[in-house]
Amino acid sequence: MRIDIITCLPALLEGFFSTSIVKRAMDAGTVTVNIIDLRDFGIGKSRQIDDYAFGGGAGMVMMIEPLVDAIEHLQSERSYDEVIYMTPDGELLQQQITNTLSLSENLMIVCGHYKGIDERVREKYITREISIGDYVLSGGEIPAAVLSDAIIRLIPGAMNDETSALTDSFQDDLLSPPVYTRPADFKGVKVPEVLLSGNFKLIEDWRTEKALERTKERRPDLWKKTL
Amino acid sequence: MRIDIITCLPALLEGFFSTSIVKRAMDAGTVTVNIIDLRDFGIGKSRQIDDYAFGGGAGMVMMIEPLVDAIEHLQSERSYDEVIYMTPDGELLQQQITNTLSLSENLMIVCGHYKGIDERVREKYITREISIGDYVLSGGEIPAAVLSDAIIRLIPGAMNDETSALTDSFQDDLLSPPVYTRPADFKGVKVPEVLLSGNFKLIEDWRTEKALERTKERRPDLWKKTL
Repeated sequence: MRIDIITCLPALLEGFFSTSIVKRAMDAGTVTVNIIDLRDFGIGKSRQIDDYAFGGGAGMVMMIEPLVDAIEHLQSERSYDEVIYMTPDGELLQQQITNTLSLSENLMIVCGHYKGIDERVREKYITREISIGDYVLSGGEIPAAVLSDAIIRLIPGAMNDETSALTDSFQDDLLSPPVYTRPADFKGVKVPEVLLSGNFKLIEDWRTEKALERTKERRPDLWKKTL
Repeated sequence: MRIDIITCLPALLEGFFSTSIVKRAMDAGTVTVNIIDLRDFGIGKSRQIDDYAFGGGAGMVMMIEPLVDAIEHLQSERSYDEVIYMTPDGELLQQQITNTLSLSENLMIVCGHYKGIDERVREKYITREISIGDYVLSGGEIPAAVLSDAIIRLIPGAMNDETSALTDSFQDDLLSPPVYTRPADFKGVKVPEVLLSGNFKLIEDWRTEKALERTKERRPDLWKKTL
């Protein structure tokens, strides 16, 4: 898979894509992530990429031309499954969306900044608008990292242990059960005895029960879906 | 404000905290973000921080001792408003939560990794568990960046234009209206005429109408809250 990210703050994303599972997946050749600096498509000597909003008001707007040039440049080289814009008014990211997107060949992600991108780019070039949650961030870079990480970890070879992803929260609309590791007794606080029993049937039942319990208590909305 | 982040992958967060508004806020002295390397509290020569899960199954669990040592070390130096654990089964992050947290003096954020942290740490030390959305990531680092960014940008002085934050999506349970900048005519695609009218009353009305329209269409759940 190839992911191209258009941003005006490439430095913000570099640390992220040079560590962790993303780097492992890139080293293994299963995924390539390219950071495209929007300034390379900026206008004039100052490489301008933003301007005041028509109609006035606080906050700058990302200009149409540099974005369109960057998007069209990438599209001239390959076709994309989706051109995604990270925006708080997009569709709410959920695990099912990442599952679908993890099957893509080429994805383009556009990071907004300031007050957002010129609406005409959204209308003509963006095929999918995604929000990572109901809160506002200073730009689309961290959301792009969220989306990339969520997708990449689902690609076979990206994680050390592939079966691990399948038992994650949300894959079955259930939250995960509690986990414990050594020591079994930490200053008098003990691990639940069943986990030390070696009886895998009992352990499996306990985990399912705890997962259901936790989901019911913390996320009644998900709990209803499992009924 | 001071934010201390405990992580086993400090490199992942470094780029983020050396750019953008976070750096600006740090330079201005309004906020300090410290990345604490959990390995410094690891056990033995190999500085072990994770171990197999009791009861078996795929994925490692972050050990109780290094985490408790790191948390208690920080707590011995100052008191914290919250000790936050980023986890997909936590309370869903929303703008109102970031508003509240932005008034804190000291925040500690614990990043999980692998299958998560030993449940006993959650029970005894964590005061708040936060999820950034219903999807799974490879660790708590990017979620910690999300939370920090959402909080820091609300602190006066962090953004270039403070009034900008107040007109963001979600602050009034409405999505933002579309934004446009020059040129007014891009290859025949024009900016809505009202925005060029110079009539601020008309522009304000148009923006409110578009914000309501967009919220109703894209997020009927938020729309109901505004009625």
